[in-house]
Amino acid sequence: MMQDNKVQIFDTTLRDGEQVPGCKLDTKQKLIIAERLDLLGVNVIEAGFPVSSPGDFKSVSEISKIIKNATVCGLTRAVENDIKVAAEALKYAKYPRIHTGIGTSDSHIKFKFNSTREAVIERAIKAVSYSKIFVEDVEFYAEDAGRTDNEFLARVCEAVIKAGATVLNIPDTTGYCLPEEYGAKMKYLRENVKGIENVILSCHCHNDLGMATANSIAGVINGARQIECTINGIGERAGNTALEEVVMVLKQHPYLNLETSINTKLLYDTSILVRESMGMPVQPNKAIVGANAFAHSSGIHQDGVIKNRETYEIMDPEDVGVTESAIILTARSGRAALAYRAKKIGYELTKVQLDVAYTSFLEFADQQKEIKDEDIHAIMKVVNKISKIVMA
Amino acid sequence: MMQDNKVQIFDTTLRDGEQVPGCKLDTKQKLIIAERLDLLGVNVIEAGFPVSSPGDFKSVSEISKIIKNATVCGLTRAVENDIKVAAEALKYAKYPRIHTGIGTSDSHIKFKFNSTREAVIERAIKAVSYSKIFVEDVEFYAEDAGRTDNEFLARVCEAVIKAGATVLNIPDTTGYCLPEEYGAKMKYLRENVKGIENVILSCHCHNDLGMATANSIAGVINGARQIECTINGIGERAGNTALEEVVMVLKQHPYLNLETSINTKLLYDTSILVRESMGMPVQPNKAIVGANAFAHSSGIHQDGVIKNRETYEIMDPEDVGVTESAIILTARSGRAALAYRAKKIGYELTKVQLDVAYTSFLEFADQQKEIKDEDIHAIMKVVNKISKIVMA
Repeated sequence: MMQDNKVQIFDTTLRDGEQVPGCKLDTKQKLIIAERLDLLGVNVIEAGFPVSSPGDFKSVSEISKIIKNATVCGLTRAVENDIKVAAEALKYAKYPRIHTGIGTSDSHIKFKFNSTREAVIERAIKAVSYSKIFVEDVEFYAEDAGRTDNEFLARVCEAVIKAGATVLNIPDTTGYCLPEEYGAKMKYLRENVKGIENVILSCHCHNDLGMATANSIAGVINGARQIECTINGIGERAGNTALEEVVMVLKQHPYLNLETSINTKLLYDTSILVRESMGMPVQPNKAIVGANAFAHSSGIHQDGVIKNRETYEIMDPEDVGVTESAIILTARSGRAALAYRAKKIGYELTKVQLDVAYTSFLEFADQQKEIKDEDIHAIMKVVNKISKIVMA
Repeated sequence: MMQDNKVQIFDTTLRDGEQVPGCKLDTKQKLIIAERLDLLGVNVIEAGFPVSSPGDFKSVSEISKIIKNATVCGLTRAVENDIKVAAEALKYAKYPRIHTGIGTSDSHIKFKFNSTREAVIERAIKAVSYSKIFVEDVEFYAEDAGRTDNEFLARVCEAVIKAGATVLNIPDTTGYCLPEEYGAKMKYLRENVKGIENVILSCHCHNDLGMATANSIAGVINGARQIECTINGIGERAGNTALEEVVMVLKQHPYLNLETSINTKLLYDTSILVRESMGMPVQPNKAIVGANAFAHSSGIHQDGVIKNRETYEIMDPEDVGVTESAIILTARSGRAALAYRAKKIGYELTKVQLDVAYTSFLEFADQQKEIKDEDIHAIMKVVNKISKIVMA
């Protein structure tokens, strides 16, 4: 049933994102972000980890009350009390989901739990069965699945499907996998787990080596149908998969025939809301939502974009809510960019005038990072002394 | 000859990185960075685009004089004057390389050059032949190769190899490719271009959709042996491939049997040097070099890391020059993290004391983003009133 072309977007900005040093939000801030996520069109909002603190419990509970469209999800460990508390926090949700699980890699089983594979499967089954008492929709995470051997992982998945799990989260907890490897893991599970066709496989990737986006895409190409992600890619260490990136990869590659329900025109504003609420800066060269993501400064590129936007841009900035490709003038800019900007502020230059202006421009630009409109006015005064400029 | 396991690292921080809005450096700053890159162990330093401005010419020339180990490279268009000027700027280099090329995608041929495929091949051959008059080492870029159809791209490659190119740069100029697609392109060229075994294929990826690192890795898995990248992934729009990411992916996946000559322990300091010189911020959740890249704040993660570092860390922070994994205390932290930090500053807690301390800790933590050592001292005073703490 799940192999249609819809990829569910599971946003964990308020859980995996919020647990980052310095990102803590109060309940009011969380409510504002949760409402925005609902408007953005995410399918699931992971609202918090209710047992972890009274503040977190309250936030999950309040978010549950106000969200109209998305499923609201609460995280738990494979611990009865965690699950009971999460169910309590989610009791007002229109579509509640409990997200429970346990580490399945040998490293986690040995060092974290001092346990055995068989005992871990038992705890997994118990946690899912117990969650089903409270809610129908139960997602199971096999923590550190990225480093769990596929055969054992398949056994865990089969056991929790039998116990009632509706979604199976296969996290690359440490951000180690290569896309080929992560995709192959999803393919293996699709082919080797009984009952897998009745549940949704979910990608949860971390960006420690810079490959979270590519890994998630490899996951959905190989049969997963949910991606867990955060706005701006915030999260533990190097962060989670960036929501804006996976959504735009799918949108810009229609031949993959995979769709999300995200209203992409709200991406940029949502990014700003999260950045400002959390005080978590987004670097200028961040894909999709960075200040420079649609800015062109080199002469070769500016010339190309002025002739035809698609020469260097694969996305229309308006599609993600950015209103204009910024053409920024620096020492790397060429004549075309200078003429373009000069015209925008009123000067129509002949070829000879442009040559004079450009020489003067380069002298300015070698001394300062960026040429502003007032500098262009100054340059045009110099040109005007030599040859009268026609005003555009 | 080129299919050994060495991947050349071609750093373009000073060319593709520096052409970014706000990133302009003066010659002195460029010399400092170039020296650091040489020390870091990069194989090629692209020092600038000499014809673009007098400042850029001077920087390439001065860098050429001081670099002892790396090849120094200058960018040109497929234009005689560009090439002559670049050769002049590189004349003091111990190992000079001219990097010339032209757009090969239909979009570039049509909109940028208003030309034809045949005419573009002619210009490519001419540019390479002319460059060979000045230097032995000539790299050719097929701009927008990511959107160039493979058959035509192979024809271009064969023609420029015949003309003497030593390196073929296959840029995904717009950052559009998926890793599978980019890898397949490299494989196609390896299998279909006469003479390809005598040259180095090079990956030059952009991060518009967040996949530059994964694309470059797919490239070298499929036979490329050079990656073009920048420190901190700076560059036009969403930036270039981040040097630190591809280097660490290869280091952390020894089964790929691909090596670089980078001294990874200098990565973090080099990142800071570039960030500070350019005034180009690095977001906290940036892979490898972000402030949080090795920071753990959630209770589950902190507990795991305290028991065994490898539970959540796939890299030793010291390998990239970061001295310690930071354990930051927030409302998401658990008892283990609190006990660990308390012990570090002198308090040895019993289980009962830890319970009391943790309750008090959560009250503090729900009100502030991060718990500092002075807060812990305050919490311990409360605990001490109830039960005498042994000092560690």
